[in-house]
Amino acid sequence: MYPKKIANETAEVIQNYLTYQAVRLIIDQLSETNPKKGIWLRQYASSQNIQKGEAFIEGLMAEDKELVLRILKVREYLASEVMEFMPQMVRHNINQANVEHRRQLLERLTGSPSMSSTASESENDDSKPNSD
Amino acid sequence: MYPKKIANETAEVIQNYLTYQAVRLIIDQLSETNPKKGIWLRQYASSQNIQKGEAFIEGLMAEDKELVLRILKVREYLASEVMEFMPQMVRHNINQANVEHRRQLLERLTGSPSMSSTASESENDDSKPNSD
Repeated sequence: MYPKKIANETAEVIQNYLTYQAVRLIIDQLSETNPKKGIWLRQYASSQNIQKGEAFIEGLMAEDKELVLRILKVREYLASEVMEFMPQMVRHNINQANVEHRRQLLERLTGSPSMSSTASESENDDSKPNSD
Repeated sequence: MYPKKIANETAEVIQNYLTYQAVRLIIDQLSETNPKKGIWLRQYASSQNIQKGEAFIEGLMAEDKELVLRILKVREYLASEVMEFMPQMVRHNINQANVEHRRQLLERLTGSPSMSSTASESENDDSKPNSD
């Protein structure tokens, strides 16, 4: 397995996603403070490929430098606010979802609904690899 | 601003992405150990919406329970290996990209290429919000 490459690709996906969230947040803010600019940004964003955050920002430079600076600031802020809890959140959510999927698998294998929504033993079987 | 909602949405995006990476990794492994199954999984994955990880896993349950269990294990492993470094990686990458975008903005405003690839002062101006 090659977790290093996957780590780099995951970081890129998150960077793009936080850039997209920053743009969304600014559109929201502008709808109150400067609706005309908000509408412009919304239309601009939907006409571009916002999933490629860096290219989106570069394209916007030719249109509105102030908005670019604002996006840079907001995504930095979001990264500082949001990323700290990500490792625990993601691991927790995946573990929980896995418990649920394993319960469903068990139901299908035995043909009967298993122990509704508790299943504390399957939470502790092999769902914790080697970190933490 | 509402970082809590954005944190939840970001965690979901990462969970879907790690599920996708787990499937990719398993396809790679199967291409050596069980090529027929590898080809089947590749075709199945491309016929489904793999961007919705949980729905993808549920759909696969009716097809191949062993593969489902393997995906659950691998994405858990990836989360444990990869997430630990994400906060630093993402913040670092965003800060670096922002420095670069700000330098480009400066060049456009002054009409002249600014200090090539060092610009250590702009790295320390307002690019560190309030975390760490």
